[in-house]
Amino acid sequence: MRKFSLASLVAMFIAGGCAIEEVTLNSQQVLDASQAAEWRKIDADSLLVMTLPAGQVVIELADEFAPAHTRNIRTLVANHYFDDSRVVRVQDNYVVQWGDPDADTSNARSLGEVSNTLSGEYFRPLAGLNFIALDSRDAYAKRVGFVENFPVGTDGKRAWLTHCYAMVGVGRDNAADSGNGSSLYVVSGHAPRHLDRNVTLVGRVVAGMEYLTSLPRGSGPLGFYETPSEQTPILRLQAAADLPEDKQPSVEMLRTNSKSFEHWVRARRSRTEDWFIEPGQAIGICNVPLPVRANP
Amino acid sequence: MRKFSLASLVAMFIAGGCAIEEVTLNSQQVLDASQAAEWRKIDADSLLVMTLPAGQVVIELADEFAPAHTRNIRTLVANHYFDDSRVVRVQDNYVVQWGDPDADTSNARSLGEVSNTLSGEYFRPLAGLNFIALDSRDAYAKRVGFVENFPVGTDGKRAWLTHCYAMVGVGRDNAADSGNGSSLYVVSGHAPRHLDRNVTLVGRVVAGMEYLTSLPRGSGPLGFYETPSEQTPILRLQAAADLPEDKQPSVEMLRTNSKSFEHWVRARRSRTEDWFIEPGQAIGICNVPLPVRANP
Repeated sequence: MRKFSLASLVAMFIAGGCAIEEVTLNSQQVLDASQAAEWRKIDADSLLVMTLPAGQVVIELADEFAPAHTRNIRTLVANHYFDDSRVVRVQDNYVVQWGDPDADTSNARSLGEVSNTLSGEYFRPLAGLNFIALDSRDAYAKRVGFVENFPVGTDGKRAWLTHCYAMVGVGRDNAADSGNGSSLYVVSGHAPRHLDRNVTLVGRVVAGMEYLTSLPRGSGPLGFYETPSEQTPILRLQAAADLPEDKQPSVEMLRTNSKSFEHWVRARRSRTEDWFIEPGQAIGICNVPLPVRANP
Repeated sequence: MRKFSLASLVAMFIAGGCAIEEVTLNSQQVLDASQAAEWRKIDADSLLVMTLPAGQVVIELADEFAPAHTRNIRTLVANHYFDDSRVVRVQDNYVVQWGDPDADTSNARSLGEVSNTLSGEYFRPLAGLNFIALDSRDAYAKRVGFVENFPVGTDGKRAWLTHCYAMVGVGRDNAADSGNGSSLYVVSGHAPRHLDRNVTLVGRVVAGMEYLTSLPRGSGPLGFYETPSEQTPILRLQAAADLPEDKQPSVEMLRTNSKSFEHWVRARRSRTEDWFIEPGQAIGICNVPLPVRANP
């Protein structure tokens, strides 16, 4: 029943700088064999730390795709806008959303120097990006791949972040410029790719998703909580760079332009673990786990 | 910015048996306009009701795809095998699994007349199925579509249920025949389609997913709980047909071979709601919500 001819992967690894070893690696072995230089330590300037009662959520910002929105978010964070804010919405198999629970009332928090409206950053030119293509038939985009450790779709000219699990976006009303970064959400279910190019994505949760995804679902329309007492407090949302050095999360990502990442994708596409009977020889853009080493 | 030429859908509806109306319908309007005959009431013989402390989970069995496994499961249910069993595993963005927490010990519950091993029902012939194709580029299968209200992949000869959100499968060890229906899981994250044709899928949760997906994640390997006290009790798992008539869940599904389902898919593919700026004109097999009217 097992189809080793297809399933087995022969990866070439240069060990010790001279010996060449031919080995069949599964995904764990790929990580074990990776080199230190293949990992990218995420700069503290690109990390936010959101503290919930249950634990910490670490977010990497995607400045290359949404520079104006990430600038707004950094300003709001510096002004403590999100401290003592709330998770206001948990829609099963969709998104978890947070921000000022009184945003739509006369008690709304001040946005300070941040403008209430901001043009959507729904896509950008593909040119100028280090796009690593993924060989995959995608329902939504002509081509898919990665830029650094973010999943990306492209039509050959425009490029956009894709709504995979853990991607963070900016809530907005109907107007294209009605988002500003004060209301944020994270994808918590099967990728809602119909949102691609309709919402500004600003980053990705790289640690602590489980503190958001295990929250009780909201019983109101779209999963909004119906009473304030159901909302989960966000104690603080801080820039990692503003934390004492020993409290800063250390997050490393396997570079998507590394040999080990190439082997990682191959191993995930053609599973060689004994458990698999008929490995699928296929992979979707939102099914590629992006290897992360985090110590929050 | 809005592209009405592409986004607008003109659906033809025959109203009152004679008048022909031309209307642009969004997905909610499609449901509102659907006819009673387009809905399929699921027979109580095909429904299981799992009672957790927080609420009821309703499962529809897929006899056409896994007749031997669904037979096993019905026997185990009739023998109260799952009553006072446990949710033993909650792996974030993957699966929730339940069964006898002592299955691997000398205290394991008796399977009664159910055999410990059973050949996997990983696929079946496409012939004989009422397959409704979905126009979608899929990373994992040559063609995708629906059989009744289950998502299906096919290579033109074989057909298999796909691991979309809420699909229920049979846990197994490495051997292909090591599953028997006594350990069940449900897909709770982005579709793990690499499991297609490697595990026997037996049905789908049609109501109550939120009681499983909001459980605390397990901290052990693969999301297994490390202590019995973390496990969630399953009070009862019963056949709907064995419940008093007034306690039986009433579940209706929009038939996938109905005109309204065709319009539903079109409306989900090309969103006409004002909120959308650039509707994607695309849809994935696991992104088609299967309309259900349930009164558990």
